[in-house]
Amino acid sequence: MTTFDFTPIGTIHSPFSEPAGTPIQAVYAEDVAGHVVVDPPYIEALDDLEGFDYLWLVYVFHNATGWSPHVTPFRDVTARGLFATRAPRRPNPIGFSLVRLISVDGARLEIRGIDVLDGTPLLDIKPFIPNFDLRMDARAGWMDAGRASLETADARFVNTQDKSDPETDAR
Amino acid sequence: MTTFDFTPIGTIHSPFSEPAGTPIQAVYAEDVAGHVVVDPPYIEALDDLEGFDYLWLVYVFHNATGWSPHVTPFRDVTARGLFATRAPRRPNPIGFSLVRLISVDGARLEIRGIDVLDGTPLLDIKPFIPNFDLRMDARAGWMDAGRASLETADARFVNTQDKSDPETDAR
Repeated sequence: MTTFDFTPIGTIHSPFSEPAGTPIQAVYAEDVAGHVVVDPPYIEALDDLEGFDYLWLVYVFHNATGWSPHVTPFRDVTARGLFATRAPRRPNPIGFSLVRLISVDGARLEIRGIDVLDGTPLLDIKPFIPNFDLRMDARAGWMDAGRASLETADARFVNTQDKSDPETDAR
Repeated sequence: MTTFDFTPIGTIHSPFSEPAGTPIQAVYAEDVAGHVVVDPPYIEALDDLEGFDYLWLVYVFHNATGWSPHVTPFRDVTARGLFATRAPRRPNPIGFSLVRLISVDGARLEIRGIDVLDGTPLLDIKPFIPNFDLRMDARAGWMDAGRASLETADARFVNTQDKSDPETDAR
């Protein structure tokens, strides 16, 4: 079977050194400051990023191990198909987060709204382009029913990569 | 240097057998029908996908070769930093497209709005969750200036993976 090898282009730095307390989504981490450092070969490719308010960071859920076809999301009592969730333990543990870009200085991007562990390997950066990425009419399946509870403050944080309870994840 | 190996979970099928004529973004391919077939180990993990209007398909730009720190986007005359574009020739050629989910039948998802080549290797499927993925206030840097021309009909299609002219890409 064909396999594709990817090498990180840099690292995401956040205040979250362990899964407990890491926000489940960037939208719940609006004020959380972090930064990205790209490796030297990629610095030039950051040109023109300033001017975009938001970036997609594409990264590896490097602490995730294995996967199951069903997971029980945080604050849900029903197991859901993995691909209907954002859980990190996926066949290919690739994640993306939509973060606010504050500034670019050489190899370093200051960002806000970061929801990943410190040291997360970065695979790619793409600009968020409203014209391409917005869909205003979207229903969100099982998430819609749980939206009220997801929006309560105490649902904002969850241990996303706790190996002791890997099936319970709200992403 | 650490490398991460990813194995496709299935294949994206589209009407586009060659780069010429392939839409540059899913938003310009709203009516284009395609389908996804996931490999047998992943069928169960599709449970609960129905009910989501849109999915993120995460895939490999399998025809892309090499990368450059700057690319001149389609209908632009200025070279831009690669990470400020959606060009497929990236250090890690990972793409994602936001597509409309029509139906799920066993291993097969019927989709609309697909903008990739037929046979594209699929790495992941994630639900589009408006609560997580929408940002209404986003500026789009150099794209904003070109938005009017990008929205003209004749700008909707571009050869995205033409090796004869790999620097010219509107993504």
